[in-house]
Amino acid sequence: MTSPADMANAIRFLSMDAVEAAKSGHPGMPMGMADVATVLFTRFLKFDAKAPRWADRDRFILSAGHGSMLLYALGYLTGYEDLDIEQIRNFRQFGARTAGHPEFGHVAIAETTTGPLGQGLANAVGMALAEKMMAARHGDGIVNHYTYVIAGDGCLMEGISQEAISLAGHWQLSKLILLWDDNHICIDGDTSLSTSEDQLGRFTAANWDVARVDGHDPEAIAAAIEAAKATNRPSLIACRTVIGFGAPTKGGTEKVHGAPLGAEEIAGARAKLGWPHAPFEIPAPILDSWRAAGIRGAAERTAWEARLAAYPERAEFERTVAGRLPENWHQTVLDFKRKVTAEQPKWATRKSSQEALEALTPVIPELIGGSADLTHSNLTHTKVTRSITPTDFSGRYIHYGVREHGMAAIMNGLSLHGGFIPYGGTFLIFANYLWPALRMSAMMNRRVIYVLTHDSIGLGEDGPTHQPIETVTALRATPNVLVFRPCDPVETIEAYEAALDNETGPSVLALSRQNLPTLRTIHSDDNLTARGGYILAESDLDSRQVTLIATGSEVSLALEAKDLLESRGIGTAVVSLPCWELFERQTKEYRSAVLGEGTVRIAVEALGTFGWERWVGDNGAVIGMTGFGASAPADKLYNHFGITAHAVAEAAQARL
Amino acid sequence: MTSPADMANAIRFLSMDAVEAAKSGHPGMPMGMADVATVLFTRFLKFDAKAPRWADRDRFILSAGHGSMLLYALGYLTGYEDLDIEQIRNFRQFGARTAGHPEFGHVAIAETTTGPLGQGLANAVGMALAEKMMAARHGDGIVNHYTYVIAGDGCLMEGISQEAISLAGHWQLSKLILLWDDNHICIDGDTSLSTSEDQLGRFTAANWDVARVDGHDPEAIAAAIEAAKATNRPSLIACRTVIGFGAPTKGGTEKVHGAPLGAEEIAGARAKLGWPHAPFEIPAPILDSWRAAGIRGAAERTAWEARLAAYPERAEFERTVAGRLPENWHQTVLDFKRKVTAEQPKWATRKSSQEALEALTPVIPELIGGSADLTHSNLTHTKVTRSITPTDFSGRYIHYGVREHGMAAIMNGLSLHGGFIPYGGTFLIFANYLWPALRMSAMMNRRVIYVLTHDSIGLGEDGPTHQPIETVTALRATPNVLVFRPCDPVETIEAYEAALDNETGPSVLALSRQNLPTLRTIHSDDNLTARGGYILAESDLDSRQVTLIATGSEVSLALEAKDLLESRGIGTAVVSLPCWELFERQTKEYRSAVLGEGTVRIAVEALGTFGWERWVGDNGAVIGMTGFGASAPADKLYNHFGITAHAVAEAAQARL
Repeated sequence: MTSPADMANAIRFLSMDAVEAAKSGHPGMPMGMADVATVLFTRFLKFDAKAPRWADRDRFILSAGHGSMLLYALGYLTGYEDLDIEQIRNFRQFGARTAGHPEFGHVAIAETTTGPLGQGLANAVGMALAEKMMAARHGDGIVNHYTYVIAGDGCLMEGISQEAISLAGHWQLSKLILLWDDNHICIDGDTSLSTSEDQLGRFTAANWDVARVDGHDPEAIAAAIEAAKATNRPSLIACRTVIGFGAPTKGGTEKVHGAPLGAEEIAGARAKLGWPHAPFEIPAPILDSWRAAGIRGAAERTAWEARLAAYPERAEFERTVAGRLPENWHQTVLDFKRKVTAEQPKWATRKSSQEALEALTPVIPELIGGSADLTHSNLTHTKVTRSITPTDFSGRYIHYGVREHGMAAIMNGLSLHGGFIPYGGTFLIFANYLWPALRMSAMMNRRVIYVLTHDSIGLGEDGPTHQPIETVTALRATPNVLVFRPCDPVETIEAYEAALDNETGPSVLALSRQNLPTLRTIHSDDNLTARGGYILAESDLDSRQVTLIATGSEVSLALEAKDLLESRGIGTAVVSLPCWELFERQTKEYRSAVLGEGTVRIAVEALGTFGWERWVGDNGAVIGMTGFGASAPADKLYNHFGITAHAVAEAAQARL
Repeated sequence: MTSPADMANAIRFLSMDAVEAAKSGHPGMPMGMADVATVLFTRFLKFDAKAPRWADRDRFILSAGHGSMLLYALGYLTGYEDLDIEQIRNFRQFGARTAGHPEFGHVAIAETTTGPLGQGLANAVGMALAEKMMAARHGDGIVNHYTYVIAGDGCLMEGISQEAISLAGHWQLSKLILLWDDNHICIDGDTSLSTSEDQLGRFTAANWDVARVDGHDPEAIAAAIEAAKATNRPSLIACRTVIGFGAPTKGGTEKVHGAPLGAEEIAGARAKLGWPHAPFEIPAPILDSWRAAGIRGAAERTAWEARLAAYPERAEFERTVAGRLPENWHQTVLDFKRKVTAEQPKWATRKSSQEALEALTPVIPELIGGSADLTHSNLTHTKVTRSITPTDFSGRYIHYGVREHGMAAIMNGLSLHGGFIPYGGTFLIFANYLWPALRMSAMMNRRVIYVLTHDSIGLGEDGPTHQPIETVTALRATPNVLVFRPCDPVETIEAYEAALDNETGPSVLALSRQNLPTLRTIHSDDNLTARGGYILAESDLDSRQVTLIATGSEVSLALEAKDLLESRGIGTAVVSLPCWELFERQTKEYRSAVLGEGTVRIAVEALGTFGWERWVGDNGAVIGMTGFGASAPADKLYNHFGITAHAVAEAAQARL
């Protein structure tokens, strides 16, 4: 029988040796938490290294992602097939799966991409919430697993952690267990440089169970996990550890955090821990013991598969877990488009969004909503999205409170878990608060939908603190995000359709507070919004001299400018460009035809003008905001900032 | 003697009537907190409405900025000269000082701009820290004031609040008093929809004193504030209030939060509270009592002015409070430039930044540093910037912990307080976490310097989670931010010089992790970086056919490409463009000459390419990143993503 200490030392030396070979990385955390991880993976975690995506596995999230070698070592030792010793040797090298920080999709053991601190913890809250919600739908014979997180001081210092732990405590996510690497060291030095918080008190105040253990005492760790599993609240286990445990001179200091230990220190650690083996060499008995742990869960998995096979709703469970949309939902979109094309309501696009969601949520049961405490403004609630509560997870609507960043990261967790397509609302300007998590949605190819209302100076009196100028630019500049700014009900549901069809990344809908006319008055089965941009109104005169390009609430303004220009004999087309990213995917020919190569191109958008040169070219102009907004009724602001049909027409005429 | 209830009702009815007239706004909070605010302003707050910027006044921050009418009512009632009744009548109208949310610089009573929740609370922590730091420098005869904050549930739900309260507790900011509007209502409805936290426990865990009072009992409120002033820790006073107190049917519900009450409900409130007066009418005895409260502090102010007059260091105190830099500091910049121009070190620009700070911090004592727990990576510490500690505030370096967002908002508070120019470091990618607070630096014209290192894929192995792609774009798109990406030690200190000379907004320095050559090898007294862009190397051939435009670490790569192109007979100039915003302020002629109108323009930057069309035009090209990065050594990544001198040269040649 291999001792737990030897098994933990295998993690320690793989970590030391891999960081040394890479000449960069973070050995201190894997060395410090090796004992805790060994207890968790050999005695508690329900998993099967040979079937890593088994839907009812326990989730393990390394929120302190810089300690990636902990995860890779565990993956190699337990026998994940995508992590052989060559991967460990090639830690942080080009093309290796063993990236500097664990990346979802690169290695099966990474349930989420971590590194930006606090994100993983919040993702874990989302996964634990998803577990409760899936169990409410399918019963605990099909869904019944724990979510374990390792987080360090950095994760707990980030504000997002408070948003996440508040919600976890509120919802009483009893199967969430947080193992805090309580090592008293941060990068600058001792944590006492910047914190003197009573973390147990903090978590207690948030309705968590708390415990404190010696993170190098396997039996104490095991007892604490046992106790945590038994409670009906989320659990914090403060694991008092020595960072870089085993490093003879640097252990317990910030020197082991983020740099190779050096040959001498590693030799010292080998002597100190009694590990005479060569770098990357794990003695067979130790490896065997780890490999046995890696398949501990196989029987449980087999039993679960049998239960699933007998489950009457198996197809629906598998469909939602696989992220396949139901049959025929596109028909709902077509019906909606026909209706609004005929009725031509004057809705704010936030209202169009609500109506679209009213149509879509009944036919797509995995579509779950929420808002960061702006439900009545975002209009994100629908008749079928009953709220979830701490005692009833069968609902479909999440009150996140004023916690935008936490909301986005929890949506990532819901999406990563499988079974749901989350959408969440806030004001567009508060996308600034959630941007780091939206970036993770994009990097992890998550189908998460951000419903961002009050999308310009058109929100009026709330003033410059609430009026986005730069937000849409930042979202457009973030890779793998579809940013939609629809102009009417037709484009709005088309944006939802494109967002739902976009299986490999998040989408943003930027929606107006103010009412707007319906502009798409001729029904088209085609999703024109999914082309990114299209000619909404061709020139009514013989030739097109001017092309006006607009998005969202400014499309109707462009149409007014077209009338002005054409009354002066200047042939003018209006292009609606609701999604830059999709437009860029069209052929060059299509784009040239839409943009009217050779015409004078004027863009108008009541946001910052940054980046529009791409579409208007050297001879064009952009009508928009060049500074912060102001507090006044919307029409006053449009006039004050010169975002008017008249200004658009003048800009065009000046360039002819 | 006017009763406290009548005085509070004056706030309530001004708020109700102003929101009603504006047809938008938030009456519930001012009505709920009117009693608390009355106690504070009539019995505690040290201020003089006739001298609103008196340096040693107590600071009052309305973190729940949507309740702006509370602040405006207080300003009008106490006699601030910029807030007459017409301003109240014109609440939220174009050109009025009474904007939807309180804006610093628009009304004297607004110590900071609030509205984005949590920011004000964090600003207040910065102000309370500034008070301790200024008192450590000048003694408590000159600096000795309290900082009071009103915050609501929204502020306390935002993650930034945790970062701020953790630090306030850590530093034991004993003169910080937080009055929590504990009204049990958020926008979606009862706070129990999304929170069940024990806030008193949470603050206790963060080393605050806590108390709970009836927010409608003036004597209880006064006793709690007295007790809070006496403790040696920051204090939370949970004020249990009824939102919309006095509204007969909507009071105590979310219906009074963010919309006018309506004529009928207001009539009901007049009856219920015994307030028969017309809209905007404050009976003379009540107004007289308020006005007397407004000048309560005049004697104290006069005494303080006498102390200041006798203070030997008065000139230095006044200089730093006014934000005037010391004489002759520009000489330090020149000396530094001469030295590095001669020695031509191969420093990473983060190292250049450290050396620049080593030169600047001794001669600019108000320049105070810090880092969000990346001191050894950001290289933000200098020999003279001793760390502040909870027991010694005479230092100049702040360990913020892993709390980027809190750091930025606290820097805003330090700057708003007066006396300091703060700089703070983190990795560039984590500017995403602090962006909402940086936006406030910009909106409030704060001279705050963001030192953002590890600024591209050049950071290498830490991988895509740490490699900024879109961050610089977002910062460039944010109004009133100077974004510098210097290429060498000369440009780096020039960037600091321009940042320090920029008295009306924040600056960002994006700095490399990797070593770079010194490229500015001929000394110039002129600050070329302050021009935004300039020709670093003119064509060595007869005519310039190609202009290569680069920033930061890619400038040396552009110089290599120039050599390649010129070896092929193609005249090529290299433009360094370290600051777009300053370049845009140059004349059109200067810009055309630098950019080489008519030449083929190729930009290269190891970041997202978004927005570069502005400089390269229709016939140009941009070499940069179009997706997320990867984890590998930096040179491997530059090759993999095609950011090479070869690629730059090829792109240019293809367009000739």
